[in-house]
Amino acid sequence: MSLRRWLPCLDWGRSYNRASAAQDGLAALIVTLMLIPQSLAYAMLAGLPPVAGLYASILPLLAYALFGSSRTLAVGPVAVVSLMTAAALGPLFPAGSAEYVGAAMLLALLSGLLLAGMALLRLGFVANFLSHPVISGFISASGILIAVGQLKHILGISASGENLQQLLPALLHNLPAVHGPTLLIGACSLLFLWWVRGRLKPSLMRLGMGAGMAGNLAKAGPVLAIIVAILVVSLLQLEQAGVKVVGAVPQGLPGLSLPTLDYRLALQLLPAALLISLVGFVESVSVAQTLAAKRRQRIEPDNELLGLGGANLAAALSGGFPVTGGFARSVVNFDAGAQTPMAGVLTAGGIALSVLLLTPLLHNLPQAVLAATIMVAVLSLVDLKALGRTWRYSRQDGAAQAATLGGVLLLGVEAGILLGVGLSLLLFLWRTSRPHMAVVGQVPGSEHFRNIERFAVVESPSVLSLRVDESLYFPNARFLEERIGELIAARPLVRHLVLMCPGVNLIDASALESLEAIVERLQAAGVQLHLSEVKGPVMDQLRRSDFLEHFGGQVFVSQYQALRTLDPLSTRRALVRG
Amino acid sequence: MSLRRWLPCLDWGRSYNRASAAQDGLAALIVTLMLIPQSLAYAMLAGLPPVAGLYASILPLLAYALFGSSRTLAVGPVAVVSLMTAAALGPLFPAGSAEYVGAAMLLALLSGLLLAGMALLRLGFVANFLSHPVISGFISASGILIAVGQLKHILGISASGENLQQLLPALLHNLPAVHGPTLLIGACSLLFLWWVRGRLKPSLMRLGMGAGMAGNLAKAGPVLAIIVAILVVSLLQLEQAGVKVVGAVPQGLPGLSLPTLDYRLALQLLPAALLISLVGFVESVSVAQTLAAKRRQRIEPDNELLGLGGANLAAALSGGFPVTGGFARSVVNFDAGAQTPMAGVLTAGGIALSVLLLTPLLHNLPQAVLAATIMVAVLSLVDLKALGRTWRYSRQDGAAQAATLGGVLLLGVEAGILLGVGLSLLLFLWRTSRPHMAVVGQVPGSEHFRNIERFAVVESPSVLSLRVDESLYFPNARFLEERIGELIAARPLVRHLVLMCPGVNLIDASALESLEAIVERLQAAGVQLHLSEVKGPVMDQLRRSDFLEHFGGQVFVSQYQALRTLDPLSTRRALVRG
Repeated sequence: MSLRRWLPCLDWGRSYNRASAAQDGLAALIVTLMLIPQSLAYAMLAGLPPVAGLYASILPLLAYALFGSSRTLAVGPVAVVSLMTAAALGPLFPAGSAEYVGAAMLLALLSGLLLAGMALLRLGFVANFLSHPVISGFISASGILIAVGQLKHILGISASGENLQQLLPALLHNLPAVHGPTLLIGACSLLFLWWVRGRLKPSLMRLGMGAGMAGNLAKAGPVLAIIVAILVVSLLQLEQAGVKVVGAVPQGLPGLSLPTLDYRLALQLLPAALLISLVGFVESVSVAQTLAAKRRQRIEPDNELLGLGGANLAAALSGGFPVTGGFARSVVNFDAGAQTPMAGVLTAGGIALSVLLLTPLLHNLPQAVLAATIMVAVLSLVDLKALGRTWRYSRQDGAAQAATLGGVLLLGVEAGILLGVGLSLLLFLWRTSRPHMAVVGQVPGSEHFRNIERFAVVESPSVLSLRVDESLYFPNARFLEERIGELIAARPLVRHLVLMCPGVNLIDASALESLEAIVERLQAAGVQLHLSEVKGPVMDQLRRSDFLEHFGGQVFVSQYQALRTLDPLSTRRALVRG
Repeated sequence: MSLRRWLPCLDWGRSYNRASAAQDGLAALIVTLMLIPQSLAYAMLAGLPPVAGLYASILPLLAYALFGSSRTLAVGPVAVVSLMTAAALGPLFPAGSAEYVGAAMLLALLSGLLLAGMALLRLGFVANFLSHPVISGFISASGILIAVGQLKHILGISASGENLQQLLPALLHNLPAVHGPTLLIGACSLLFLWWVRGRLKPSLMRLGMGAGMAGNLAKAGPVLAIIVAILVVSLLQLEQAGVKVVGAVPQGLPGLSLPTLDYRLALQLLPAALLISLVGFVESVSVAQTLAAKRRQRIEPDNELLGLGGANLAAALSGGFPVTGGFARSVVNFDAGAQTPMAGVLTAGGIALSVLLLTPLLHNLPQAVLAATIMVAVLSLVDLKALGRTWRYSRQDGAAQAATLGGVLLLGVEAGILLGVGLSLLLFLWRTSRPHMAVVGQVPGSEHFRNIERFAVVESPSVLSLRVDESLYFPNARFLEERIGELIAARPLVRHLVLMCPGVNLIDASALESLEAIVERLQAAGVQLHLSEVKGPVMDQLRRSDFLEHFGGQVFVSQYQALRTLDPLSTRRALVRG
């Protein structure tokens, strides 16, 4: 039972059949064709040798197939996580060095342990710290940062930096050194890939091809670009002309090995690993949920955590780097008809075959083509209009999104995301620090009570009725004290205050302390506190303290009953007046 | 108008009269007698020369009287803030050195700027980060830490440390070097002050003295202890016998001077200054509110921020250190009949006179007596039973309180409070990450809808009614997606989902995004989303996005209306069945 809870593959594996296998096989073929250029490109983006990307697309896929709950999520290297990897490791080691490769594996190990730990301790809610505006601003800014960072490969110049403040001047400074043949290859690849992305499928369909087939062929566009580029470079001997190529890619499957277990380095990488885990998880779950819902399937966040944790641990043990579920490739997997995670297993097999057979052919692949692949992929992540939409919807959320976007662009990925999270927590606290409360009065001729500012209602001179519309907890506990202090100071005749609590779902220890302070202060001022319409669970919790015994007031079932008890005359009069 | 907003003294000053002056004068006299030993002692606790405590009790009181809104708050050095000052500066400079004194002034400057800045930018809500359990655990642990730290003065040995892990071994190690005469003076002072605190007032009353007079005399107990101790030390020449005394205290008022403006140091002290400001503000406001309520007066949090900010800036300019409103001394001020902040002005005058006239007499004051004063004062802050009460009331709040208490004792004040704040934020997020939701059904024979798990209600087979009882924002937005995904996956016949929103006060951008994802996923599964009972302000906000235009569903005024529209047959049947 518990085993099936943590191994969803026991469920789908049991009823696996030939029809599913055929569909999974086709999907795996298409995803493999898509994944080869992507994994090479994202390894380059992460500052790693291209083969690391292929390694990160074998075992991690098997691990996710074992533990993950999504039927169609396609795991592997993705753009944003690769950028975060580069941002974490870039300042520590020279890109591509053995230390860098080892640190990338360590980062995957930490990320895997964090994700698996969050799964087992049920800490998935921590991902909620990343509000949607923060994630949205982060993704858009990352897309821009990645695209600008890849320009150097297209231009054939060198430029590095963690943010636009460093990247742009470096690019401008080295612009005169632009390398003609590289730029030609890069520009052609960009144009071709752009055309493939938007136009190939309709063109093929106009030629009479079915929509499915045309779509699948279009996905293979980057592979075509790679083949053509390799041929051109080989035939024209462009490497000798200074076009940077991928170079020798080791042939054969990755050996299993532990990353360097350097505790000081691990401690240093921990914050980056946490951010990578959370961002990767949030993005991946959102894709998985969207796809699952289309077939009325379910995904379990805890299983997703474990699946992604397992994938990262597998990446750490096989020369990879942090991975997560990819958006575009999962959609392709789904559309191509993948039925179960077996599609992922078969994709892993496809990549393994490529590593065994194709790597010698990749030597002459120009880096400019990989850069073009990345740029076309990430620019679709950039959605600057979202900022305007969020801002119009809510100034606070817009501010958090703008801060994250600006922070990532100008300071870098980690500083930017921390800025956004900090600001959204602060704004959340501000927003929840003033719970909605209304002084209410009796609607004449009824037993109902409404806001005195909105309705023509009757207020008792000696009983103040205050309706609280939110839970009472530490962010707003002090405001309650202030507000009641104000109201009582302005109403010298009041002798009873009835707190009407139909909207209070929780009273935490801070709010309880505030209520006790309020009772004491009111009593000093000759006013007694009462409660009305308190929900069952809140009453249960209050009974666990001695508040109800010594606060001196009563708990009324309804506000009307409270008023009838505390000020019968005025209540009767209001009832009749209606 | 705006001037009066920020200078409450213009209000009370206008109607100031002779009667108030007499009452303020008496209160000032008593508070001065109480403040002299306290300010000397807390300066010693903060690691500063005793005279710094007196300096911190002159100008800061005037500044608070100008800007503060409480009529009776007594400002000056307090135990907890002095401990935090020592914890911030101890690791940087030798206690009592010129650099240390300068850094203490800088800390007061930063604290003053932060408080004043928070007042002007209306950022007082930031103090809400400090939940009651965190503050309570912090105060208790600080009390213990201070008391243990003062033991060395009572024993006449040396021992230092920021937490019990450092203090206890140091004390035990030096215990053999205990100094007999010092211990005798210390122990006698402790016993005497303990007796004064609890028994002197009743004894005096039994001798026929009025309660007020007896209480006031009892407050002067520490002054009596000081006088006797000075006499004993002087007559028996105990300084030569090795009893540590206060030594030469400079005579005369403090000169106005800026603290050393070292930007690197300022940056280093900023986090400590922020914590000192927030803790000082929270404690001070709570005292001020309690006292104000007794006379149905009001205090304005923004004015309190400015008042305390001004007090700290004044301390920074006159050789002092961080100050805030003190609990015991404010209560004494109030009980002695203080009517206006003029009592604070007169107290400042009293302390100024003492600095001018009495400082030569303080030379032979033994440090052990000051330590005894501190210990008796802080042990009343320790309330370990509160931990049990909080734990019984709520496990989460109890955990935050225990973490803060343990953190402060074992790690130190800053680490402890940060641990507590971090944990309470995490727990808050966890608690709010699962909003209360209930699948509801129609109560037979009525138009009401209730939780299907608690009531015998009728559920429509094709319409799922889900009531959301909390606001929807980023901590719980993803849970909504998960929950709806689950519910729909389990109900293949459902064609409409009505989200009943009577308890939703806010839908933030994250929740809006989740709703959009939900709509898309539901549509892919052949289900249409609708809303019902949406509050006015929430509708207004939704209209600022294009959600309502393209979500494809309807917004119903009531759940009954929704059901009658979407499943008329079953709704009619349920209505009749009652």
